[in-house]
Amino acid sequence: MPWPAGRPRILLFDVNETLTDMSPLAGRLEEVGLPGRLPAAWFAGVLRDGVALTLAGGHASSAAVAGDGLRALAADEAGATDAEQAAAHVLAALPESPLHSDVPGGVRALRAAGFRLATLTNGSADTTRAVLDRAGPNDCFDTQLDVTGPGRWKPARVAYVHALDATGVPAGAALLISVHPWDIDGAARVGLATAWLRLTARPYPATARPADLTVTALPDLAARVAAT
Amino acid sequence: MPWPAGRPRILLFDVNETLTDMSPLAGRLEEVGLPGRLPAAWFAGVLRDGVALTLAGGHASSAAVAGDGLRALAADEAGATDAEQAAAHVLAALPESPLHSDVPGGVRALRAAGFRLATLTNGSADTTRAVLDRAGPNDCFDTQLDVTGPGRWKPARVAYVHALDATGVPAGAALLISVHPWDIDGAARVGLATAWLRLTARPYPATARPADLTVTALPDLAARVAAT
Repeated sequence: MPWPAGRPRILLFDVNETLTDMSPLAGRLEEVGLPGRLPAAWFAGVLRDGVALTLAGGHASSAAVAGDGLRALAADEAGATDAEQAAAHVLAALPESPLHSDVPGGVRALRAAGFRLATLTNGSADTTRAVLDRAGPNDCFDTQLDVTGPGRWKPARVAYVHALDATGVPAGAALLISVHPWDIDGAARVGLATAWLRLTARPYPATARPADLTVTALPDLAARVAAT
Repeated sequence: MPWPAGRPRILLFDVNETLTDMSPLAGRLEEVGLPGRLPAAWFAGVLRDGVALTLAGGHASSAAVAGDGLRALAADEAGATDAEQAAAHVLAALPESPLHSDVPGGVRALRAAGFRLATLTNGSADTTRAVLDRAGPNDCFDTQLDVTGPGRWKPARVAYVHALDATGVPAGAALLISVHPWDIDGAARVGLATAWLRLTARPYPATARPADLTVTALPDLAARVAAT
């Protein structure tokens, strides 16, 4: 795909797994008797359920859907502690999620290159702020956004439009960065430019609209867009 | 929740995991070098991606999304055979999925009690027919439906409306039966009565609209609705 014409005026980052390293949650799950390999199934289930609820015309917070998901996992495991305690213990760790090690440097390089930066998550903007404050680079971002206002999860069109409205940037001048192909696909359908952050060996799905740009680490993105 | 007034005129069944036992797919995954515990993560990811695509305004067949999901899983595993071969091998097993052991008897009891029966799947109606023909009770069903016509996956409103239109039954006279809370939630929002088939210890999620009826096996459903 050709890189879209023109320098983006804002870089809009997804948060969970894109900026944050969620792997320490494996240890949290094990502390409450759940298999440490479950985070992937949990995340997929939370997205499935939050997105399905949006598609059906409803809405719930990511914390509520994530809690439901953890109670389901706890019910599968005889060795799990009380499901409510398990959910609370794991959810409490989210604001303490570390960033991928190269994110602070990559973010600072992008800010130094003159780009405006913001985040848009299906999670909580407050949690995003806590994570970025703890790790340092929160000052590089104009704003942290979530989908509470529109009441519909990404990849609903209105979620992306909410971010464009909040930052005062037209779709064609925004670049969305995400590890999630469904997020790239949704943003592309609204007219944003897109960069897929490919952190695993997984190929990009044939059923999702392709990204304009694929990078394997955030500092690569800095090099690529700084040249525009 | 109170059981809705009146005897349902049609019983609309979800297919994957509701009627079919998908556990043999674990063996198929192992045959191509993938961990047998992966079906749950695969199913959650396929639903997430198909539903997200629908929410974003796109559409793809379940076979295409499932294939993308298998290629992703294969990329995670060094021991996997060629990703295309792995996907083809696992997908080829879907029409051979067995029914849960009590489904044929439950279906025949419902038909004998005078109910019209149909299926509505995000998968393929042809695959549903193959599964039910192989296991016997296909003759109990008026029709096998999928979401190819509306071009939107459940729980989009139009998917349920498609089934109501195809069977000529108003929402209030239809009962949807599913193991999936997101499916119960979606059908309830369109006005169908709902029965949650609870086959595991998992609690019903707080974020989904509750089912009118909860049963732990299909023969229980026959006893419950036959009494209406």
